[in-house]
Amino acid sequence: MSTLDLMKELHRDKGGKIVLLVMDGLGGLPIEPGGPTELEAARTPNMDKLAAEGSLGQIIPVAPGVTPGSGPAHLALFGYDPLSHVVGRGVLEATGVGLRVNKGDVAARGNFCTVDPHGLIMDRRAGRIATDEAAPLVEKLRSIEIPGVAIELRHVREYRFAVVMRGDELQSAIEDTDPQQTGVAPLPALAIEPGSQKTAELFNMWIERAREMLSDQSKANALTLRGFSSDPALPPFPEIYGLRASCVAVYPMYQGVAALVGMQVEEFEGETPADEFSAVAAGWDKFDFFFVHIKKTDSRGEDGDFNAKARVIESVDAALPRLLDLKPDVLAITGDHSTPARLRVHSWHPVPFLLWAPATVRADDRRGFGESNCSGGGLGTFPSREIMSLLMAHAGRLEKYGA
Amino acid sequence: MSTLDLMKELHRDKGGKIVLLVMDGLGGLPIEPGGPTELEAARTPNMDKLAAEGSLGQIIPVAPGVTPGSGPAHLALFGYDPLSHVVGRGVLEATGVGLRVNKGDVAARGNFCTVDPHGLIMDRRAGRIATDEAAPLVEKLRSIEIPGVAIELRHVREYRFAVVMRGDELQSAIEDTDPQQTGVAPLPALAIEPGSQKTAELFNMWIERAREMLSDQSKANALTLRGFSSDPALPPFPEIYGLRASCVAVYPMYQGVAALVGMQVEEFEGETPADEFSAVAAGWDKFDFFFVHIKKTDSRGEDGDFNAKARVIESVDAALPRLLDLKPDVLAITGDHSTPARLRVHSWHPVPFLLWAPATVRADDRRGFGESNCSGGGLGTFPSREIMSLLMAHAGRLEKYGA
Repeated sequence: MSTLDLMKELHRDKGGKIVLLVMDGLGGLPIEPGGPTELEAARTPNMDKLAAEGSLGQIIPVAPGVTPGSGPAHLALFGYDPLSHVVGRGVLEATGVGLRVNKGDVAARGNFCTVDPHGLIMDRRAGRIATDEAAPLVEKLRSIEIPGVAIELRHVREYRFAVVMRGDELQSAIEDTDPQQTGVAPLPALAIEPGSQKTAELFNMWIERAREMLSDQSKANALTLRGFSSDPALPPFPEIYGLRASCVAVYPMYQGVAALVGMQVEEFEGETPADEFSAVAAGWDKFDFFFVHIKKTDSRGEDGDFNAKARVIESVDAALPRLLDLKPDVLAITGDHSTPARLRVHSWHPVPFLLWAPATVRADDRRGFGESNCSGGGLGTFPSREIMSLLMAHAGRLEKYGA
Repeated sequence: MSTLDLMKELHRDKGGKIVLLVMDGLGGLPIEPGGPTELEAARTPNMDKLAAEGSLGQIIPVAPGVTPGSGPAHLALFGYDPLSHVVGRGVLEATGVGLRVNKGDVAARGNFCTVDPHGLIMDRRAGRIATDEAAPLVEKLRSIEIPGVAIELRHVREYRFAVVMRGDELQSAIEDTDPQQTGVAPLPALAIEPGSQKTAELFNMWIERAREMLSDQSKANALTLRGFSSDPALPPFPEIYGLRASCVAVYPMYQGVAALVGMQVEEFEGETPADEFSAVAAGWDKFDFFFVHIKKTDSRGEDGDFNAKARVIESVDAALPRLLDLKPDVLAITGDHSTPARLRVHSWHPVPFLLWAPATVRADDRRGFGESNCSGGGLGTFPSREIMSLLMAHAGRLEKYGA
């Protein structure tokens, strides 16, 4: 029996309220050997107090040494084995901007680019064209009609957009048309499996029309498509856990993953941690589970800015009392993966995990929230996909297994 | 390859003697934040010395957050994945009182109860009727004959008994007849799958006759059945590990689990830890592996009596020299799950684990046996079902895997 099946069998429909606070890319590395990580350098009195009262551990998103993308890293946090449940980039992007990807649809992520008079790519991201210049181009492309299928487009931000094709017998085993280099032409959509041949041809027809339409544009006169993918048919989170689940996130992609598993994506004003915690407060009575996503830890890690990443963590800590005032029964603070500023990319390092649940936690002897303390914490080192059963237990939401 | 298959392949038939000392529900929680757990509060000089000489860790019975019943918790200690090997309540109860459940039989646990003149349940446990009053009722019910099947009954204790039906084409997918509340009538035996329809009808015939027979009784005039189940066909423990295995336990249910995996259940006088260790001594030359079960840690935990649970642990510690005098090569001291007195029920918290094996253990820096020390011990945090291979190795009973 898989853990998801077990949760489906054991969950109670009543119990405490759970908050899963995810700071994207939280895990870090010291700049100098022996120094603190970003989280350890940050001044976090509130989290340190929770660490003292709670229990620490570290989580492995996919497998030791495996660096995850945002999709698999979040699926794991929600309890889905990311090696069994695969969500394509196109589906993530489309769902993130509110485009539904239903059974039988094929989604892709689109990038505007620039090509020279010979059709060879000059800039794969069209100079990161501004949102207000790119959005009208997406609008223009909406007029393209391909016989037998419906095509929906939505702008994401800057040079990025999402496309979803709906029709009969569509399949998504198609290679990216982005050649990942400049000086060559975009590739045609190429089917990897025979069943996807027809779909690839339909996309090529659409690409052809789109190129004609963009050819007189100065800022972005071509495009590439990547991450062709279909509905991953994930078992719904609310059914697995018996939780009314809410997502409070600023960035479309994370809203997209949450929507894919069936969480309710909240709309709210602002984008600071305090704004996000206020959104949690606004939905407090309507939901049992709150996934709260902080993006900027990851962004500053990818910038390679150690101090800025630490400051993002401090801003979350400073806003934390607003969340604690709600008196959650269970609060977990963690990341989806590590993004050490020193490396400037996602990494495979274990992610610090803090569990606070005043009624039932077995406190360990660790006093502050940071990588070193977490690596010796009472919860040990375990897969990210096992945190949900732990949170459920501490919320009093699981029946006993077996007699 | 499963771990059980691996053990079957790698085990030697010779090696040291192993004692697995299980204090039921050993894991605990502090009463006040920052205070000791039951195990930490108990004065345990002998175990502390073993902890100093040995290595500590903590074990997870089923999965993080999952609270196990006694059956799955013990199967895990014996190396069986409790999610793949499921033993029903009826089988556990029947085997525990020496009723064999063979292939094709269906077992259930019975509870005497009281009903009012309208047949509605007043007390689901018949006022916890005394054993000497309940046993004659079981005797009475033995006279019921149902055409085509044989029915065996055995009294367990107080209001509880076990029933096993033997016949052709019996199946156990039948719902409990215990409605789990008072003021309503016992339910009929209801098949969940078509193949169990006939068996359910046979049980209903038996229930009908039993009710007639009990109707004039004052202390217990009705009954319910629960945990309908069949032989789980567990691969035998002695074959997997090449161990002559003995069970020293006072309570029927734990003798039952041990019998189900093919251990020899020892009979002995008395029920104190000292009596149990004497029983181990009596069988010392006949067996390689001794599963010793202490029940009262769990009982006092379920009573919510922190101090009494600590005293049970102290009584085990005080008797321990008797066991150590036998000079076991490997001694593991642990629990099947946690039963914190503060919660009064089984819980999901990790279980302290102590490994002592003078010839081969790599001692860690932990000096006393308790939850905090175990959470940072040298063995880490790992699934209960992995302890057996560790004990086998330290007893010199495993070949190398691969060249």
